[in-house]
Amino acid sequence: MRIIIDAMGGDHAPDDIVRGAAETADLIDHEIVLVGDEARVNAALDAADFEYDRSKLSILHAPEVIETGESPVKAVRRKTESSLVKGLEALKNGEGDLFLSAGNSGAIMAGGIFILGRIEGFERPAICSAYPILETGATSILIDSGANAELRAGNLLEFAVMGSIYANSVLGIESPSVGLVNMGTEPGKGSAMLKEAYGLLTKAKEEGLVPGFLGNVEARDVPLGICDVIVCDGLVGNIILKMTEGMALSISHLIRKKFTEGIIPKMGAVLLNNKLMELKKAFDYQEYGGAPVLGVKGAVVKMHGSTDAKGVMKSIARAIPFMENRVVENIGKSMAEISKIERNE
Amino acid sequence: MRIIIDAMGGDHAPDDIVRGAAETADLIDHEIVLVGDEARVNAALDAADFEYDRSKLSILHAPEVIETGESPVKAVRRKTESSLVKGLEALKNGEGDLFLSAGNSGAIMAGGIFILGRIEGFERPAICSAYPILETGATSILIDSGANAELRAGNLLEFAVMGSIYANSVLGIESPSVGLVNMGTEPGKGSAMLKEAYGLLTKAKEEGLVPGFLGNVEARDVPLGICDVIVCDGLVGNIILKMTEGMALSISHLIRKKFTEGIIPKMGAVLLNNKLMELKKAFDYQEYGGAPVLGVKGAVVKMHGSTDAKGVMKSIARAIPFMENRVVENIGKSMAEISKIERNE
Repeated sequence: MRIIIDAMGGDHAPDDIVRGAAETADLIDHEIVLVGDEARVNAALDAADFEYDRSKLSILHAPEVIETGESPVKAVRRKTESSLVKGLEALKNGEGDLFLSAGNSGAIMAGGIFILGRIEGFERPAICSAYPILETGATSILIDSGANAELRAGNLLEFAVMGSIYANSVLGIESPSVGLVNMGTEPGKGSAMLKEAYGLLTKAKEEGLVPGFLGNVEARDVPLGICDVIVCDGLVGNIILKMTEGMALSISHLIRKKFTEGIIPKMGAVLLNNKLMELKKAFDYQEYGGAPVLGVKGAVVKMHGSTDAKGVMKSIARAIPFMENRVVENIGKSMAEISKIERNE
Repeated sequence: MRIIIDAMGGDHAPDDIVRGAAETADLIDHEIVLVGDEARVNAALDAADFEYDRSKLSILHAPEVIETGESPVKAVRRKTESSLVKGLEALKNGEGDLFLSAGNSGAIMAGGIFILGRIEGFERPAICSAYPILETGATSILIDSGANAELRAGNLLEFAVMGSIYANSVLGIESPSVGLVNMGTEPGKGSAMLKEAYGLLTKAKEEGLVPGFLGNVEARDVPLGICDVIVCDGLVGNIILKMTEGMALSISHLIRKKFTEGIIPKMGAVLLNNKLMELKKAFDYQEYGGAPVLGVKGAVVKMHGSTDAKGVMKSIARAIPFMENRVVENIGKSMAEISKIERNE
């Protein structure tokens, strides 16, 4: 199979992106296509201070770059010669089986929707992030982690199905448990939309489509690892990720203070602080290998803007089962069942 | 002035509620009215093992009790002889200036709305919780912390005004800073409702009604104490509180594990853990003295269901400036200005 990488997206592009790709090329059985300015990509390949099989890497020339600050929709429409647009077009045309980019997040979403198109019936593609559980070292899946501020109840059912397929095919969790984030565990809790989503998910559980549905879960239990797939809208998903980061920071500041006051001995303070900074770093996606965009007709992975060569390697490694196990195809096949439940048949 | 206390509400009622009230009576210049079953309240007063001036306490007999599990609206309508209903009626009739209850939260909200009524123009009363900042020991105000899952943009403007008045009058913060929780700091972020709320709050800032409006804030900065008044709907408020609690628990588990593994020396582990458990306890409201219900025609404070005598004392102490500084009256006076902004005049 073939992996297409946006060589020009991200804070450290093209050097770190190209270096990460080159380091990975020797370790995997797939070919890699680097999309970007040919001269700059070649220069980055030449600069590599390690041995690798250059024949496994090819370049698809794209003279334009979509910058971080640009309006996503406009940029995707106007910059038809950009690495992002040309990479997604190559994926669409079957010249590759997976696309990764550390570029403008909004443009990756917009490009996914406009160039690849939505999987039939999936109204709202979502970003699916890995949520690390501090105590156990396990990983939950948070979907949607920030793409959609406003949704219908049916979209949350779609997220639950997509998240379960991903957790199963990519993380290898046999029967993933699924929780709907709400302000209480009782069925009647929350907004009209959340109540309706609870009803749809309950039906999907009965029909065997989301067999692992646990019901509503409280945010309190998310960092404790209550379920494998955490379902919520993008606003709630953003708040869960950002509160995790903020609390890790706040407690890290406290540890530093207590250490300075001589209350916590140095050794303990340093070790604990490192663990919290690891957690914080995990939320830069780097360690956890990129976030797939689910619901579009193609395997797309959004890497963090500040990803380095190591991050690129991890992202590719994590994305390989996403590509090989035909997650996008399986998501598409689930729509018939989702529609039945939504139409209440 | 007179403080009315629901002697029958809460897990430790009437004993701990009455004890806390009796211990407070000697320390304050106000009278206390205990609402509840006369015989049981008297027995609890008799049981006190300390000296206090019983003449400062009176009893308002109420034979019925609204239990925790009861449907709030039904209970308030049917149990007209309950301590909650009789207490709120006494407040409405001017027999007291403040009402505190550790009873059924939903029934306190419903009773506030049905018995006292909403302050003219305030569509949605909100629960205003204290949010403790771990690093500095300061306190932010979180409004709404869980009462309303669905809101209009105008309601968030009302919360910003009510929260600012409370922070100023009760916490003594001269010009409270106000942040709108959103999934990014840029003005165009979030749902249509959040975008509209941002517009209303910007206008309210220009007009001097919410001079401390900082704009959108990310959840990441909430635990770091970015603003005095955190404005959000009840679902987001609940998630912020519950994520704080969940992260404190999760990190506390990690500390215990690292201590057991011999990585953190005992002294440091114990001290840090205590700090995290303090934070967790703070979210039981007890330490932070109850949460006012803002937007109803009367000073109402919801104490935590598991509050003990010490918690009752702290809740009364915190609620006294809420009563003395006529917060409810000042909130009422702000409606003319709020309406102007909402009508875009």
